[in-house]
Amino acid sequence: MRKNNSNSFELLILGTSSATPSKTRHPSAHLLNIQEELFLIDCGEATQVRLFNHKIRWNQLGHILITHLHGDHVYGLPGLLSSMGLYQRENPLTIFGPSGIKEFVHTTLRLSHSQIAFDLQICEIDHTSASVILQDDKLTITAFPLDHRVPCIGYCFRYKDHFKKFDKELLSRYPLRIADIRKLKEGLDVTLPDGSVLRSNQVLLDIEVNKSYAYCSDTRYNERIIEYIKGVDLLYHETTYDGALEQKAEEMGHTTTLQAARIAAKANVQKLVTGHYSSRYHSLEHLLEECQGVFPQTILGIEDLRIKW
Amino acid sequence: MRKNNSNSFELLILGTSSATPSKTRHPSAHLLNIQEELFLIDCGEATQVRLFNHKIRWNQLGHILITHLHGDHVYGLPGLLSSMGLYQRENPLTIFGPSGIKEFVHTTLRLSHSQIAFDLQICEIDHTSASVILQDDKLTITAFPLDHRVPCIGYCFRYKDHFKKFDKELLSRYPLRIADIRKLKEGLDVTLPDGSVLRSNQVLLDIEVNKSYAYCSDTRYNERIIEYIKGVDLLYHETTYDGALEQKAEEMGHTTTLQAARIAAKANVQKLVTGHYSSRYHSLEHLLEECQGVFPQTILGIEDLRIKW
Repeated sequence: MRKNNSNSFELLILGTSSATPSKTRHPSAHLLNIQEELFLIDCGEATQVRLFNHKIRWNQLGHILITHLHGDHVYGLPGLLSSMGLYQRENPLTIFGPSGIKEFVHTTLRLSHSQIAFDLQICEIDHTSASVILQDDKLTITAFPLDHRVPCIGYCFRYKDHFKKFDKELLSRYPLRIADIRKLKEGLDVTLPDGSVLRSNQVLLDIEVNKSYAYCSDTRYNERIIEYIKGVDLLYHETTYDGALEQKAEEMGHTTTLQAARIAAKANVQKLVTGHYSSRYHSLEHLLEECQGVFPQTILGIEDLRIKW
Repeated sequence: MRKNNSNSFELLILGTSSATPSKTRHPSAHLLNIQEELFLIDCGEATQVRLFNHKIRWNQLGHILITHLHGDHVYGLPGLLSSMGLYQRENPLTIFGPSGIKEFVHTTLRLSHSQIAFDLQICEIDHTSASVILQDDKLTITAFPLDHRVPCIGYCFRYKDHFKKFDKELLSRYPLRIADIRKLKEGLDVTLPDGSVLRSNQVLLDIEVNKSYAYCSDTRYNERIIEYIKGVDLLYHETTYDGALEQKAEEMGHTTTLQAARIAAKANVQKLVTGHYSSRYHSLEHLLEECQGVFPQTILGIEDLRIKW
């Protein structure tokens, strides 16, 4: 499914509300596009409509990662899966989530008489320790424990690739024919008119690509997560409350803006994107300002925002 | 909860899609308002958002009636109930539905750690025969079998009330003081200046109120339902397909426009309202025209339509 024609990550934010949907905010769901392979992280109610409105092709969605079983993160799953069944999806689909996710999916699909003809794998993850849940030659996804009121899992995507690219400036210094360039591209050396040898690795640079994204929702402020998300390009960390509500955040198993920004700074990430806002906040500007006071490279997560890197 | 200051029924249509939500249509949900007492019939995904956007006060919602367990009629239930819990609802709530509805609600709420502090009753109804599921001095709700691919139940609301009202024209013929009018209102007789007696029941009319609404979704064309919906003011009958797709309707356990209109005519109802449209229809005009060809008093059911009578 993954294509090799680019090395881009794109995140599409589908929902930023906490607890219940609101007039302007949808429940949690992030869509990560890694070279046309799609990963859905959390699936709040009506996520299928959000995907539909964004003209996302469900067939490209190979994995759904659920952080925890609170309704605002999981109630969209039965609808999305049964619609995939109705649209006669054929591609296999894997769901990761904490213990209980199997019973949730199987019971809702069985009782609603849903017909699922595609191969549906559901993997329950131990939420008490970190584990690599998916690994291929380029991508590694690690699940790690968050600190919420119920078992909750964060996910970190780390992607590594490398490709060869001519140093065009250097290349222009040599008298080369098209056939020579083809040889160099294939890794072969070329003898120049003056008898000297131009080696392929002199002009063909090895470019390394490193992309990473981590998703942390819902969780209390907890520095133990830092080791799992260290140095990522983009960190989504929930910011349910503003800085004044630190005690409430602790009680409810959530994080304030200031705490999330502190985690971003300590983990030395490139950028932080916020979300999972309490319904008490109609305007979100002060949440962004609070984060930026601690960690300037903060982006305000809002519905339909796309971040590409 | 029910108020006696009017005798009106109001239906609010929240969703008219079948199978999956679409860009413009939401899954099945009707809200019936009987003098400020609210009944929700079916609860497709994200019905809570629909209610929220219409500023419906959930506390006034005392009963939810589910026709069957296909996802487009029931996937909104966990979200609505858990949000009621989060907003600390206190009023009791009763859900009616076919066998399986208890397991669906209990399992989803349990696995999603939802806290429900209000009294939640779930009544499973025998879908093979008709039964009165709710009856008080004014309102009777009857559940009756529909003919779908899975156990499916229709609901009929019949409301009877009567009140006293002066015949103002008649009243104006007599020389009456305010005290006389008060006596007549209390059912007492009044002696007129000429010595004759004006009896209360001569000028105080007994007005009978009869209101009724029936909800039939999803079902094949089946004349056995006629006895349950006979003569209702407003019949909602699904019209999933146009007249050309009668065979498809039979296979899928649905009804065409022409069939629904025929049921409305045979049941001698006042008005028919359509819905549960196949996603193949972008424009609905021809569905309405087909119904009206058979049963002129057809209203096209669309999202956010209110019908008051």
